[in-house]
Amino acid sequence: MAAAFVDTHRSTLERALETIRTREYWSPYPESPRAYGDEAPGAGEEAFKARLGQPFELDQPTTGMMDVGESSPYGVDLGISYPAGDVGALVDAAIAAMPAWADAGPDVRAGVCLEVLDRLSKRSFEMAHAVMQTTGQAFLMAFQAGGPHALDRGLEAVAYAYAEQTRLPSEMRWEKPQGKRDPLVIDKTWRIKPRGVAVTVGVSTFPTWNGYPGIFASLATGNPVIIKPHPGTILPFALFVEVAREVMEEAGFDGNLVVLAVDTPDAPITKDLVLHPAVGMVDYTGGPAFGTWLEENVTGALVFTEKAGVNSVVIDSAPDLKGVFRNLSVSMTMYSGQMCTTPQNVYIPRGGIAVGEEHADFDAVAAGLAGAIEGLLADDSRASDILGSLKGDAVVARIDEAAATGDVLLASRTVANPNFPDAVVRTPVIVKVDAADRDVYMREMFGPVIYVIATDSTEESLALAGETAREKGAITWLVYSTDDDVIDRAVDAAVDAGVSVAFNLVGGLFVNQSAAFSDFHVTGANPAGNASLTDPAFVANRFRVIGVRKPVQ
Amino acid sequence: MAAAFVDTHRSTLERALETIRTREYWSPYPESPRAYGDEAPGAGEEAFKARLGQPFELDQPTTGMMDVGESSPYGVDLGISYPAGDVGALVDAAIAAMPAWADAGPDVRAGVCLEVLDRLSKRSFEMAHAVMQTTGQAFLMAFQAGGPHALDRGLEAVAYAYAEQTRLPSEMRWEKPQGKRDPLVIDKTWRIKPRGVAVTVGVSTFPTWNGYPGIFASLATGNPVIIKPHPGTILPFALFVEVAREVMEEAGFDGNLVVLAVDTPDAPITKDLVLHPAVGMVDYTGGPAFGTWLEENVTGALVFTEKAGVNSVVIDSAPDLKGVFRNLSVSMTMYSGQMCTTPQNVYIPRGGIAVGEEHADFDAVAAGLAGAIEGLLADDSRASDILGSLKGDAVVARIDEAAATGDVLLASRTVANPNFPDAVVRTPVIVKVDAADRDVYMREMFGPVIYVIATDSTEESLALAGETAREKGAITWLVYSTDDDVIDRAVDAAVDAGVSVAFNLVGGLFVNQSAAFSDFHVTGANPAGNASLTDPAFVANRFRVIGVRKPVQ
Repeated sequence: MAAAFVDTHRSTLERALETIRTREYWSPYPESPRAYGDEAPGAGEEAFKARLGQPFELDQPTTGMMDVGESSPYGVDLGISYPAGDVGALVDAAIAAMPAWADAGPDVRAGVCLEVLDRLSKRSFEMAHAVMQTTGQAFLMAFQAGGPHALDRGLEAVAYAYAEQTRLPSEMRWEKPQGKRDPLVIDKTWRIKPRGVAVTVGVSTFPTWNGYPGIFASLATGNPVIIKPHPGTILPFALFVEVAREVMEEAGFDGNLVVLAVDTPDAPITKDLVLHPAVGMVDYTGGPAFGTWLEENVTGALVFTEKAGVNSVVIDSAPDLKGVFRNLSVSMTMYSGQMCTTPQNVYIPRGGIAVGEEHADFDAVAAGLAGAIEGLLADDSRASDILGSLKGDAVVARIDEAAATGDVLLASRTVANPNFPDAVVRTPVIVKVDAADRDVYMREMFGPVIYVIATDSTEESLALAGETAREKGAITWLVYSTDDDVIDRAVDAAVDAGVSVAFNLVGGLFVNQSAAFSDFHVTGANPAGNASLTDPAFVANRFRVIGVRKPVQ
Repeated sequence: MAAAFVDTHRSTLERALETIRTREYWSPYPESPRAYGDEAPGAGEEAFKARLGQPFELDQPTTGMMDVGESSPYGVDLGISYPAGDVGALVDAAIAAMPAWADAGPDVRAGVCLEVLDRLSKRSFEMAHAVMQTTGQAFLMAFQAGGPHALDRGLEAVAYAYAEQTRLPSEMRWEKPQGKRDPLVIDKTWRIKPRGVAVTVGVSTFPTWNGYPGIFASLATGNPVIIKPHPGTILPFALFVEVAREVMEEAGFDGNLVVLAVDTPDAPITKDLVLHPAVGMVDYTGGPAFGTWLEENVTGALVFTEKAGVNSVVIDSAPDLKGVFRNLSVSMTMYSGQMCTTPQNVYIPRGGIAVGEEHADFDAVAAGLAGAIEGLLADDSRASDILGSLKGDAVVARIDEAAATGDVLLASRTVANPNFPDAVVRTPVIVKVDAADRDVYMREMFGPVIYVIATDSTEESLALAGETAREKGAITWLVYSTDDDVIDRAVDAAVDAGVSVAFNLVGGLFVNQSAAFSDFHVTGANPAGNASLTDPAFVANRFRVIGVRKPVQ
């Protein structure tokens, strides 16, 4: 079957290889739920519901099924148990699975990986419900970010892995002239040696979108992958593991190339796993504290982190503010600010800004933003579709904490989700603070917390955003300005702070969104993470090259 | 001047870019001393001699000149003092030099780097004497490995750096269809952000050959470089720094993009340097102990190590042994085994081997090898040209240590160098041990120590070589066999052990030699080092990419 997978997916791989070069828009996995046919939505929902309250069996080394700490922000009772696994046994199984996969070569591995992506695509509705109910995302976001957009990111990683592994000639004859004597001649080939067992440490919010790049980069370069999901968001990765193992086995490989390693908050296994001497790579998405621990303590493996940070909006000037508020009101509220790309801090000069030929006071701009957000979320049903639900008590607690530290421009309110009465839904709190209140806003307040910060000037706004990025990390900046000099200075400041920057977004493109094949997610150049999804550096060191020299026969 | 350098060297860069892809033989820097004209040898020697007993002034931050622990294995009195520098001040100077270099872009940086290489090439004789007198290499090796071959390795790194930085389109328009609505459209560019200050920690034996790749990879990607030479081998890097600063300044950049940080064995500064928070990369060549310390303790910077290991020869069978002995006698004696690629262990089945239609006893094979080495080194003058001199007392001490741990097949003898009466020259000791004597031969005995190991079979030979590589590291294997099955198994064993492997070398190509643009030096896949000179992974993470998105104007 492996050869058939290669043939089936060859044109998709070729297109992906071209697209990581052109950086143009492209996706083989439709983002519109309508594209999947009339049967798919119902079948996917049924498949999801059939999981509830059941053991999620996987044919991998296990000591039995275990109950976990997974829960739904929508209040749905999940009650799924998963295979418990001994760390040593899981690593041993992964090691045992490796040799045939390592020998299979880049073409076969890419074909098999693309078959996994294709089968996952066909289960996008089931995945959407799994992501929605474990992360608290609204359905459409869970569908797109958990399904097609995550698959795009996985495919992108396969393409990079393939490109990096095939940069060398498969064989060549080397000939060095020796003046009048015969040249030195030798035949050379190179063999790919995968680095070792990869561990993916999953995040609670976007497990597949953030997880697939590392998983597929490791698999496509010949490494087995152990997936340690966030203890509160397990089901999406369990589905992935089920599909991946099925494809691996059909292709004639050992299913233990992909294993699930579940734990609970009371008995975490991640440290044992990542410090195992056979582990060659760790991919992590999650909070900064543990990410930094990994960076500082896992010296026996490559560590790729996507942590988080404090993202900034700098408002300097605009032709008019309607589009600004419309765009920001969406980007700052979708999924209740629980995206690592959501802007948290909005810097506005206290003397106000130029709006077309007019002047707008600070208070007017701040009030306009607050009003746009209030209006967008006025209706509970619509608000629920935008906000999703809050994942974890800590997120909810931050709302009150934030409200106590400045002038509240817009209070948070509780929203009733019409379909899930137990869903935890809150609108964001918008707090006005002064540039001097660094301790308040120069920290990550993950969730529905927005600070509007009064500064002396756009110069100071950029300086504060830069300082925040260098100290706490940042993934996105959004700058509004009609002044080309300001824009140039903002680009320099963004490069200096290692943050991707967008300008004057007023339409349907939001700063939170990072497009596969085109945008690098996280720069790796500030504390928000040490790697990008996906660039050559994310892939090139997941395998090594062994030279073989033989005399000409 | 920077633009002129770009134009002057464009075709060289283009050829280098092509050659890292084809992996063919090519060098723009002649390896034959005769190619440099009649004046060059004398002028180079004079320039070297003019350094002796003098302060080596460099226009970089300094607290005054310092005496150092540099000494010549040939017994020449060097007596050169170098600028002393405070670590903090040197790092600050490097940081201050960075912005303009970071802004210059890949083309200008490549052009300036190639000008540095070109000027170094013109000073190859001076460099040859500097390398010879500080490392103990014989003149021709010092000329080639210290000059043209090192420059090849530097150019190779510049080519990789250029290729990696120019993989993205300089600008593009991204357009995402939105069904019946207008597409989302945005213009994208990407900016390169160099990672930070690079530190090169030099080795005592091949400072330029091992050092240039990291230095030029960092410079070409926009980073300043601080060079911390081995305390016993400073002059070659001082020459490099002088030339590099001169070119940087001519090109309009701050000379502090390249600074020298000298220390002494009594007051080492390397740990302070590499743990400085502004340091983004550390390139290290040297002993395993400190290399491992760096890997385990420097978590704030990328660490690239080339340590050392125990290289193996496996003799299974051969059409005849003359060529085998001729080739091995050279590769095992050049520079007295002080190359990290020199074979140390020769595995031979105790039952003997097939030689053509004949059988050769173990003792006959071992004696043949010993005899070939004895013969090659019988004449003191010729032996001096091959052996060079021994660098450091520890190397000399290992000869007696080795002789005490097995049957001495060939005793080491003291050689009188006809030109340098105080040179420390010894022929290698060849010691016969049994496969069971693991503690004896399964460790690095850097220098003129050769073990001939009696094994049960070639199978066991490969297994022991593999075990040694996995535990102690290895950079090269050389296998002699007429049996295709054995060759296939040896390739698999080499991949498994992460060691480059060559077969049946009997002519003028030696296993120690690693050709720029073609062979990867060190695999990064066993304890001999965590990186390769030079592959994409060696370069791709020395800079980060910052995305900039702007609406279409």
